[in-house]
Amino acid sequence: MTTYTAPVEDMMFLFDKLRNNKNYNEIEKYHDVNSELVRNILEEAAKITQNIILPLAKSGDENPTTLENGVVITPPGYKEAYKKFIEDGWTSLSCDPKYGGQGMPKTVSAFFDEMLSSASLSFKLYSELSIGAYNCINHHTTESIKNKFLPKMVEGKWSGTMCLTESVCGTDLGLLKTKAVEQPNGTFKISGQKIFITSGDHDLTENIIHLVIARASDSPSGTKGISLFLVPKFVVNDDGSIGQQNGISTVSIESKMGIKGSATCVLNFDAAIGYMVGPKNKGLNSMFTMMNLERIVVGIQGLGISEIAYQNSLNYAKERKQGKTNNSKTDNNADFIIEHADIRKSLLNMKSIIEGERALCFWLSQQTEVSLYHKDKIIRQEASNIVSLMTPVVKALFTDMGMEITSDAMQIHGGYGYTKDQGIEQLYRDNRITPIYEGTNSVQAIDLVFRKLENKNGDIINKYISLIQKDLNIMEAEMQPFISILIKNIKILLNFTNWIKDKMKNSKEDVSAACNDYLKVLGLVAIAHAWIKVLEVSFKDYKNNKQFYEEKIQTANFFFNRVLPRVESHYLSAISGSKYIMDFKFN
Amino acid sequence: MTTYTAPVEDMMFLFDKLRNNKNYNEIEKYHDVNSELVRNILEEAAKITQNIILPLAKSGDENPTTLENGVVITPPGYKEAYKKFIEDGWTSLSCDPKYGGQGMPKTVSAFFDEMLSSASLSFKLYSELSIGAYNCINHHTTESIKNKFLPKMVEGKWSGTMCLTESVCGTDLGLLKTKAVEQPNGTFKISGQKIFITSGDHDLTENIIHLVIARASDSPSGTKGISLFLVPKFVVNDDGSIGQQNGISTVSIESKMGIKGSATCVLNFDAAIGYMVGPKNKGLNSMFTMMNLERIVVGIQGLGISEIAYQNSLNYAKERKQGKTNNSKTDNNADFIIEHADIRKSLLNMKSIIEGERALCFWLSQQTEVSLYHKDKIIRQEASNIVSLMTPVVKALFTDMGMEITSDAMQIHGGYGYTKDQGIEQLYRDNRITPIYEGTNSVQAIDLVFRKLENKNGDIINKYISLIQKDLNIMEAEMQPFISILIKNIKILLNFTNWIKDKMKNSKEDVSAACNDYLKVLGLVAIAHAWIKVLEVSFKDYKNNKQFYEEKIQTANFFFNRVLPRVESHYLSAISGSKYIMDFKFN
Repeated sequence: MTTYTAPVEDMMFLFDKLRNNKNYNEIEKYHDVNSELVRNILEEAAKITQNIILPLAKSGDENPTTLENGVVITPPGYKEAYKKFIEDGWTSLSCDPKYGGQGMPKTVSAFFDEMLSSASLSFKLYSELSIGAYNCINHHTTESIKNKFLPKMVEGKWSGTMCLTESVCGTDLGLLKTKAVEQPNGTFKISGQKIFITSGDHDLTENIIHLVIARASDSPSGTKGISLFLVPKFVVNDDGSIGQQNGISTVSIESKMGIKGSATCVLNFDAAIGYMVGPKNKGLNSMFTMMNLERIVVGIQGLGISEIAYQNSLNYAKERKQGKTNNSKTDNNADFIIEHADIRKSLLNMKSIIEGERALCFWLSQQTEVSLYHKDKIIRQEASNIVSLMTPVVKALFTDMGMEITSDAMQIHGGYGYTKDQGIEQLYRDNRITPIYEGTNSVQAIDLVFRKLENKNGDIINKYISLIQKDLNIMEAEMQPFISILIKNIKILLNFTNWIKDKMKNSKEDVSAACNDYLKVLGLVAIAHAWIKVLEVSFKDYKNNKQFYEEKIQTANFFFNRVLPRVESHYLSAISGSKYIMDFKFN
Repeated sequence: MTTYTAPVEDMMFLFDKLRNNKNYNEIEKYHDVNSELVRNILEEAAKITQNIILPLAKSGDENPTTLENGVVITPPGYKEAYKKFIEDGWTSLSCDPKYGGQGMPKTVSAFFDEMLSSASLSFKLYSELSIGAYNCINHHTTESIKNKFLPKMVEGKWSGTMCLTESVCGTDLGLLKTKAVEQPNGTFKISGQKIFITSGDHDLTENIIHLVIARASDSPSGTKGISLFLVPKFVVNDDGSIGQQNGISTVSIESKMGIKGSATCVLNFDAAIGYMVGPKNKGLNSMFTMMNLERIVVGIQGLGISEIAYQNSLNYAKERKQGKTNNSKTDNNADFIIEHADIRKSLLNMKSIIEGERALCFWLSQQTEVSLYHKDKIIRQEASNIVSLMTPVVKALFTDMGMEITSDAMQIHGGYGYTKDQGIEQLYRDNRITPIYEGTNSVQAIDLVFRKLENKNGDIINKYISLIQKDLNIMEAEMQPFISILIKNIKILLNFTNWIKDKMKNSKEDVSAACNDYLKVLGLVAIAHAWIKVLEVSFKDYKNNKQFYEEKIQTANFFFNRVLPRVESHYLSAISGSKYIMDFKFN
């Protein structure tokens, strides 16, 4: 079985040393969220993830969720752990105190998201979508609906889902067939079938609040006729008590490669009572509020699984002896594999990506908070632009990197990594959903390039690159080797961006065939930017924590020298165009 | 479930158009292996793999091999299929007619290896190791042992294994503990435990012939004291009939991520009767005859699984509608995803790698035959050098590419790819063993760089690069764009090689940290070289099969423009050195 120690020190380093962002500091409601409070929260979070949730990973994989007589049964131990989880208030961490939440910013809750993902992604998913549903309801419904539903969701006694996909529509929601028929009392009757619904049914909560996209009877076809509805599993009475069962049934659950503890349901809605959320025919807009935040969390899932994969690889490399190194100091005995250059390289590759991602994510969490709560509308919008730009990048890059890292972890474990005993192959299987769900990584890349670089809010990518360039105005001599490498890569990013903008005019296929490479290039540059901020502190504060900062500097060195060169290939490959791709006749 | 159509046309193209290799043509015994015969064989091979073996893939995954009362039971359908398999003579394909074989060259049997790998890797493994054992026995034992064991193995009634790994030694065989005690009659008693033994026990054959490495009681420690022994599951009487059970028991079988139909056994040898194979203390040499050929076959496994992943992705992309393309010609409806540039790119990436690998493999099969059977010793040795050089490349690169391709296949299938129904996720899980077994891909890279580039047989890499360069002496104008790209990449390969040779003198750690990147660079150049040969024919013979050759040219175009640029990043990353890697203190 895998072991896990929450990386509280690295998280506290980010919180203590990299929080000094003017706009973020101006959000008044977070003035009390200080270092001591956050350390307390993270230490408690470490305890519950390490002790209670980690063991659920294996349990869920060995005893997948089942469907018995129409009822979904979660794996052994899930119920007890979930009870403790909500008793300790973990579902309420980032929610509004108005509804019983603790009001913690994303700079804190993102760390908890990471820990949960490391410990058990399957278990995490039961509460993760609830937060998404909470955000959506909180942003788009009336006070009376909020008061009726949110306190129980914050408390974790009710959970939430996002019901988008149907058998004919995943990426392309315009094709959806689920119908909503308005009733004289203003409610709707929802009918249709939704598939791939995460936590669509389960036995952990008293009620499940589905957010369902459907087409009202008089709405146009395509994406312009989609509305969003709140459809509870059990109808909720006016006094807040639970009433009759709604017209929703679980047809089947998916048998999957991984996250077997998570229930992925086919749900039938048969004239189920629903309430419209947000304006009619604007359902996708409302849903995307939820989806965008959720996509960043999926990126964090990739980060969390990468972290536990790294930790277990490191431990194994220190215990396993095999072969002699070039400079072996032992006689007949083999050396620990951590002495081998190639294993060290593999471990540092993981570490440099993980810590860079965590720093980037922390920076993005600050931007997210600014985009939501800063008092200045222009500053909010600017932050929002950056968050929109980076959302697909974080989702796709972190989850792809998660595959690379869990795969490398298996290689380090050799044959043992392929067997069930070590738990490594499970990390690989569990993480494999993350590049697919919440929009495949190719969809993220298309979203980035076609909708996020330039849009009605301006030339976002240009502003973002300028922002990075401004941060490189550092004089310290130790920083120069890193800065010069990054400048070289920014130049490639700029060339690539200009190439995209040019091709956008009349060779859109060239752009489509370049999206994935572009996302990778932007993501690698963004991680390097995050590393620059970490490095600045590391050199300045060096004396106060020599060992910690020395590690940071060497790890960054790895990233700049060994990971960043990938930028070059992506660029070269993409600008070769697409004629020979589009002309090809697939017989 | 997956579907599969054996790529007979592409195989016949290689056999018909790229067989014209002077040294290969000089092997007399293959003069009768003509186009018509080979097409007949491949068509029969297509039938059995498509109709009988393909269904075993799902059966084996859903009903893994079990161990009941010490006996391994294979999945439903395996026994019947194996019976038909040997009745039709498939185990004898490449074996010596002297022992009942059909004497087909690797240029033919490698195609069959690919088809079997596509259809069911688990099923394939039951006969694959038999061929390895056959080769080893055929090369290293006495006539009487050969006559006693080989006919039954060729017939497929007995199977074979390679017993190397122990719990403390996988990569590093010098650590092995299994003992061999010589008996007065010249036989040995073998005692010890072997793990990860593929097909170590099963119910498909009447006997299993284990090739076991062990240390004779008076042998030195380390790799210099290892001998090889033939240890049958049942002792074979002098008349060839099966005698008493030998001292071998199956302790357990592994529960694995994939290839669940294959029995991966822990075997206990308790004073089991064995016969020494090859000279005492030279066991690793004898074993490596077997391992080297086997490693190429593992590469072919990656190729085969890639092929079926590609075929199913292509079919799915033609059936699934989702989203509108940039130049959509439909109104409200979504387009087939095969119209999307990004999906096309992904499919061509697969196709260009697969067909390049197949061409490279065909060329290497010729070299292998020359290395074994050419009448001129010097020509044999030269071919052998090339085969030795390319063995780790084919093993590691093809299996890594198999992971990339099966992963991309899942992305094309979206959420459906992650469920068990489609069979795609199984390809991914099954292939995941290939970068690990028969020496992890990192071990292959170390083997390549430290033992194969330069050795007692000369500067092999230099000879290989010259050989490629000679093949680029082509005047045709259409070839020039490809040639100039390859020349640029050969230049990088040369620089990289010189860097390695230089660092080998006194910075071995730099070399160790560069091995994986070097293997990738050499492998990509080798595939490009194979494509050059395909392209030459495609242009010359264009008129005779326009559609087929047009596809080849466009596919090659993709490889040269979109895949080859990876060379650049690998080189840049590797030459950044290793000081910061070796200095790092992993706490």
